Amino acid sequence: MTKLSVVGKDIPRIDALEKVTGRAKFTSDFEMPGMLYGKIVRSRYPHARILRIKTTKAERFPGVRTIVLPEDAPNVRFGYDLCDEFILPRDKIVRCVGQPIAIIVADTLELAEEAVDLVEVDYEELPAVFDAEEALSATPPALVHPEMSEGFFARSFSFSFDPSMPNCCRHAKIRQGDVEEGFEQSDLVVENRYSTARVSHCALEPHVVNAWVEADGTLTMRTASQTPSRARLNLARLFGMPPTKIRVIVPYVGGGFGSKIGNDAVLEALAMLAAIKSGRPVCLAHTRGEEFVSGRHRGDTITYIKDGVKRDGTLVAREMKAIMNVGRMADVAHIVVRNWGFSVAGTYRVPNFKWDSYGVYTNNPPAGAFRGFGAPEVIWAIEQQMDILAERLGLDPVEIRRRNLLREGDRDVCGQTTVAIGMGNCLDRVAEWIEWDAKPVEEEGPWKKGKGIAIGSKYTISAPSSATVKVHSDGTVEVRHGSVEIGMGIDTVVAQIAAEELGIPANRVKVVHSDTAICPPDHGPLSSRSTFFTGNAVRLACHDAKKRIFELASMKLGTQAENLAIKEGKVFVAKEPDKFVSMQDLFISEIPLKGGEVIGTANFSVPTIPQDPETGQSERIVAYYGHFAHAVECAVNIETGEVKLLKIVGAADIGTPINPRMSEGQMEGGFLQGIGTSIFEQIALEKGVMVNPSFIDYKMPTALEMPPNDNVKAIIDSVPHPEGPFGAKGAGEGPILAVAPAFANAVYNAVGVRIKALPISAEEVLKQLKEATSP
Amino acid sequence: MTKLSVVGKDIPRIDALEKVTGRAKFTSDFEMPGMLYGKIVRSRYPHARILRIKTTKAERFPGVRTIVLPEDAPNVRFGYDLCDEFILPRDKIVRCVGQPIAIIVADTLELAEEAVDLVEVDYEELPAVFDAEEALSATPPALVHPEMSEGFFARSFSFSFDPSMPNCCRHAKIRQGDVEEGFEQSDLVVENRYSTARVSHCALEPHVVNAWVEADGTLTMRTASQTPSRARLNLARLFGMPPTKIRVIVPYVGGGFGSKIGNDAVLEALAMLAAIKSGRPVCLAHTRGEEFVSGRHRGDTITYIKDGVKRDGTLVAREMKAIMNVGRMADVAHIVVRNWGFSVAGTYRVPNFKWDSYGVYTNNPPAGAFRGFGAPEVIWAIEQQMDILAERLGLDPVEIRRRNLLREGDRDVCGQTTVAIGMGNCLDRVAEWIEWDAKPVEEEGPWKKGKGIAIGSKYTISAPSSATVKVHSDGTVEVRHGSVEIGMGIDTVVAQIAAEELGIPANRVKVVHSDTAICPPDHGPLSSRSTFFTGNAVRLACHDAKKRIFELASMKLGTQAENLAIKEGKVFVAKEPDKFVSMQDLFISEIPLKGGEVIGTANFSVPTIPQDPETGQSERIVAYYGHFAHAVECAVNIETGEVKLLKIVGAADIGTPINPRMSEGQMEGGFLQGIGTSIFEQIALEKGVMVNPSFIDYKMPTALEMPPNDNVKAIIDSVPHPEGPFGAKGAGEGPILAVAPAFANAVYNAVGVRIKALPISAEEVLKQLKEATSP
Repeated sequence: MTKLSVVGKDIPRIDALEKVTGRAKFTSDFEMPGMLYGKIVRSRYPHARILRIKTTKAERFPGVRTIVLPEDAPNVRFGYDLCDEFILPRDKIVRCVGQPIAIIVADTLELAEEAVDLVEVDYEELPAVFDAEEALSATPPALVHPEMSEGFFARSFSFSFDPSMPNCCRHAKIRQGDVEEGFEQSDLVVENRYSTARVSHCALEPHVVNAWVEADGTLTMRTASQTPSRARLNLARLFGMPPTKIRVIVPYVGGGFGSKIGNDAVLEALAMLAAIKSGRPVCLAHTRGEEFVSGRHRGDTITYIKDGVKRDGTLVAREMKAIMNVGRMADVAHIVVRNWGFSVAGTYRVPNFKWDSYGVYTNNPPAGAFRGFGAPEVIWAIEQQMDILAERLGLDPVEIRRRNLLREGDRDVCGQTTVAIGMGNCLDRVAEWIEWDAKPVEEEGPWKKGKGIAIGSKYTISAPSSATVKVHSDGTVEVRHGSVEIGMGIDTVVAQIAAEELGIPANRVKVVHSDTAICPPDHGPLSSRSTFFTGNAVRLACHDAKKRIFELASMKLGTQAENLAIKEGKVFVAKEPDKFVSMQDLFISEIPLKGGEVIGTANFSVPTIPQDPETGQSERIVAYYGHFAHAVECAVNIETGEVKLLKIVGAADIGTPINPRMSEGQMEGGFLQGIGTSIFEQIALEKGVMVNPSFIDYKMPTALEMPPNDNVKAIIDSVPHPEGPFGAKGAGEGPILAVAPAFANAVYNAVGVRIKALPISAEEVLKQLKEATSP
Repeated sequence: MTKLSVVGKDIPRIDALEKVTGRAKFTSDFEMPGMLYGKIVRSRYPHARILRIKTTKAERFPGVRTIVLPEDAPNVRFGYDLCDEFILPRDKIVRCVGQPIAIIVADTLELAEEAVDLVEVDYEELPAVFDAEEALSATPPALVHPEMSEGFFARSFSFSFDPSMPNCCRHAKIRQGDVEEGFEQSDLVVENRYSTARVSHCALEPHVVNAWVEADGTLTMRTASQTPSRARLNLARLFGMPPTKIRVIVPYVGGGFGSKIGNDAVLEALAMLAAIKSGRPVCLAHTRGEEFVSGRHRGDTITYIKDGVKRDGTLVAREMKAIMNVGRMADVAHIVVRNWGFSVAGTYRVPNFKWDSYGVYTNNPPAGAFRGFGAPEVIWAIEQQMDILAERLGLDPVEIRRRNLLREGDRDVCGQTTVAIGMGNCLDRVAEWIEWDAKPVEEEGPWKKGKGIAIGSKYTISAPSSATVKVHSDGTVEVRHGSVEIGMGIDTVVAQIAAEELGIPANRVKVVHSDTAICPPDHGPLSSRSTFFTGNAVRLACHDAKKRIFELASMKLGTQAENLAIKEGKVFVAKEPDKFVSMQDLFISEIPLKGGEVIGTANFSVPTIPQDPETGQSERIVAYYGHFAHAVECAVNIETGEVKLLKIVGAADIGTPINPRMSEGQMEGGFLQGIGTSIFEQIALEKGVMVNPSFIDYKMPTALEMPPNDNVKAIIDSVPHPEGPFGAKGAGEGPILAVAPAFANAVYNAVGVRIKALPISAEEVLKQLKEATSP
């Protein structure tokens, strides 16, 4: 590879100036003439039949323009992929507290909020189910979707109803070898049950949509969505219109973490219904409270794991059963249920493996995507198991992991070939930084110190991205992509890639993103895929543009197109840089006659092979794995059970980083979210009602909970991926991946207490400390 | 040519629904948060030095946010092509009444208007010149641009200063044969002087601009402009920025007629200055009064013409001298001065020809483009001459014209070869409709009836258009062009062309127009060029898109790409229509792998050869000519001099019309504007001050002045143009072309009075009637 000029450099983000000066625009920064404001009337019961909606008082309330009712909604079951719910309860059934029933549309937000309380809904309560294992039984206390027996429409798989699990929306399997035989051959078998709590994404920007109908009938939305291209297709199906009559515009987005993948299209659909009914633009936005109550959350999960190992620590067999409480509708949780299995495939050699994952409906709010998409929940189980196994065998936790790592060319449990795995180095780097072999220096008092280590791999799904690159006569370049700048820096990444390809500085690249009317489609920023997929699409679009430019320049320069190169607005003969033609001259002489513009287009995806439904086997089902290792040092207060973070380190194999400093930023943010979901965060539901829906009661870590800067370390130690743009993979989800089990292992290391249910709360630590010391 | 399905059909305009329901958006329909409103402080003197601008009172006025002063403007002489003026008087000289001096920027329009009167400007008056012939002398009463002797920058020609005409901004020539010799060979020589008045375009939508600076520094304008691509380049030069940092967005425009070609960039520049200085979006709009006072007008002109003919009516020699009063700055009037000459080339055989046209600065408001771009003014002279010659030779006016018409393959006076001329048929058709050979039936009373006929050809300049065509997976198509929908129907025309090319109904084509950030460049709707140039660009872009589609489909269908055709979302083997692949399938299987999108691009222009500056000769300087004939029947009141229209007909050779009904609509609108400029309209200037700047005093024709529908007839009788899209040419300007001389000839026919100065006013008719009857 030739020397890189822009890629791999820590250039400032191209959106830095507008963001730090407050000029960058997010959805709520746009106002429209005549805009009305919507507020959602929500269910007060976890499961009930709606008998009557009385709107007379609300209708008469001054400033109320219209009220959108269930009968105004299309009679179509809707969903991101599995279509299981109406956007408003056309079937007169509500299935969780907080479910939208109607929308007040008024002149101001304040008036709409007041009028919400004037809508009276008469309910007939129905039996409800909240516990995932109860819900998964053959005779559950309640059926959440009894109509499911007739089947649901799903895009990505063939949905089938299993009468032995009448609340199960998805059951996925992986089978390799024979686990029973494996356990027989094992010297040690260890079996445990782990669980994780419901948590919220807490993106700074809550969901917000402006919806209006253009004069030509185009349904148009400006929205904080992670998936405009998918939203467009979903809305087209919902409203029965061609996709070309739906436009989804996404300005900058203030964080997503998966929260804006699934339910985006629901809030858009509701806002659009309100716009259609009122004939005016409508703004529909969540408060923080609605953001909590309305979901989507990271669903609470239960994982049963049984491991068989040889005396030297070699894994022989592993059997796992994982259950996700998806709440009242699947959103994307049923995809999490499937992809969950990929999380266990990318790290360790496991000759005999059995995996069953279940998504189960309950009368809780819906679960959905969350940074890691299932992986952190299952790594929580595996990485504690590895420590338990090590201890039982008298092995070092780092060593037992190292012995079992997949190596280049290995076949993983899904049948895929391992490519460009950098996990070994990452493990070594975090062990080194945390001084793994040294005991922490204990101080006086109730605080006891410990260290923990954990690793994990994050799969990235394969899905298409496309890009358009337009070269201007002054040599500047416009890149259009359909992904979303949710804060992670994709605009800067593609600017660097285009700049590298076209030989200009990154600040001469203008990036236009996420407007379905203007930009080509993209699966969106999820699954740590943007740099790899959107980046590759941009790279290939640059190649396409260059091909056109070189063809035109070759005539001028009297040489074959393949001998040409481009840099700083000049096309030159690669071996004779003095022979060149400027872009300006090409635009004057050649380009106007041959198309008028130089536009390169490209689509990129990785060809995959569908899994065998019974065995989960596929030669390639994921695009690539990123590999991550974490280590923490913590202190546990043996009098209160409190856990305090002292040091944290993460090492990442994310392929060649396009902008290393930005990747480190991603990692530091991931650590923080990992810390929160390890020791603080939990959506507390009591019979389907969230009892802590505010940042006062739902504790996120702040600067106060973080150790000093020197004790936080992000390390990039990568193997370039052969298919990545300049060798890059993605860095979005990995940084959160194994933080929680590293914490749990450190707590055990400090005070000998093994916490198997997230979060690691002071109460639970104290309870177990007391149990351990009680006679 | 195969049978056409969409082209040539009278489909409803694609913007009809949104326009008749009032939902179509024009610039003033957009509001922006925080928008301020500007109002221009204008000069009260025709020529003066600014001594002081006192703004203290205006600055203190509540709601005033800032005042833009001359020193805030770039120190760059600016212009559409010839750069002769500052956008605000950096040189402290004002050169006409109404010239912008400063801009008040305030919270509301009303406050800005009030504050304008609080700005006190101290002037030192300078000598002024208003009359074009006085201004053109070697020793004029005033020099409008004394700095001109140092030269001006011009894009399209090499500007040179002639000390013998120190106010002349352009002198253009055509020379063919030897006119002196021609006059000697002639049996009859007739010499006359004609003149035309200043008139205003009276587009329903006055100029309006919203300007703001985007967070990334892009200077962005939403504006009622006819020339967004040119405006962008002009503004880039003015503000010293790369064109990629300028964005010009043009929504629907409520009529242009040339008024929005030139000065658009000045109002945009002023609004942008206000946005930059205030840091907020600024709306700057003309009132109707400002629209009149601020120009650009159709400049007043004088034409000297000397014709030599043989006894049989054959033209032997013609010598012309035409003078345009361009006012204080050239805008595009100097281009009118050049193109004027093309108007005399496209109709008649003239073996010996001499043409001199002059643009002369005066202290009047600036002139500019107006429907016809010089042609109606010179046809006013020629077509009265033809009638005078016919009468003197005892020939029929139709016959003398017919004898002198250019024929296919003839070389015209500019040296161009005549192609696809349909004038003869047009002449015959109007003569037939008006019953040329029958005398009108006279009634009792003072009204005397007469008929008049006149013809003219409208050149279209060559300039590039480009287009992008995107084919969607559902077979629908998006067309992007950079021209402007100013009301003439270009969006419908390109939709029909794209629909024809891609085998779908026109309502499956979405047209995106005139946003320089999104659409490819286009010279804009002027010179009757849109259908031909933008239409051809769209056609070629469809070809480009089809080429890509056919390449992909050829693999699927096992045949060569050239054997394929496309219709209704299916690609099929032309000779075996049952062998097909749907677009949907191509997008699923082939297209994602080969670029992700199907985008076709094209640029179209007609290669031309610059004129010889001394002789005006060029083998091809214009793209094509449209040919038009008009006939009117009118009544003249011999007691009052009043002229009343009874019947009007126009026949047009506009090539194959894409949408005949729309072309007829264009023609009917042109008749109306022709009637207004023939018998009513005149900007009355007294020492540079317009004394009738309102629709009360400036008379436009209304329904009351139009004859009943049956007496208004638009006829299309075309010769397909070999280079036009499906044979089409343009229809924009022709309909107004020869209305005025047809009127004048009818008045002469009715009462024997020859009016050589436009408009044909009752006063002048009565005065000449009296002179004729006085002893």
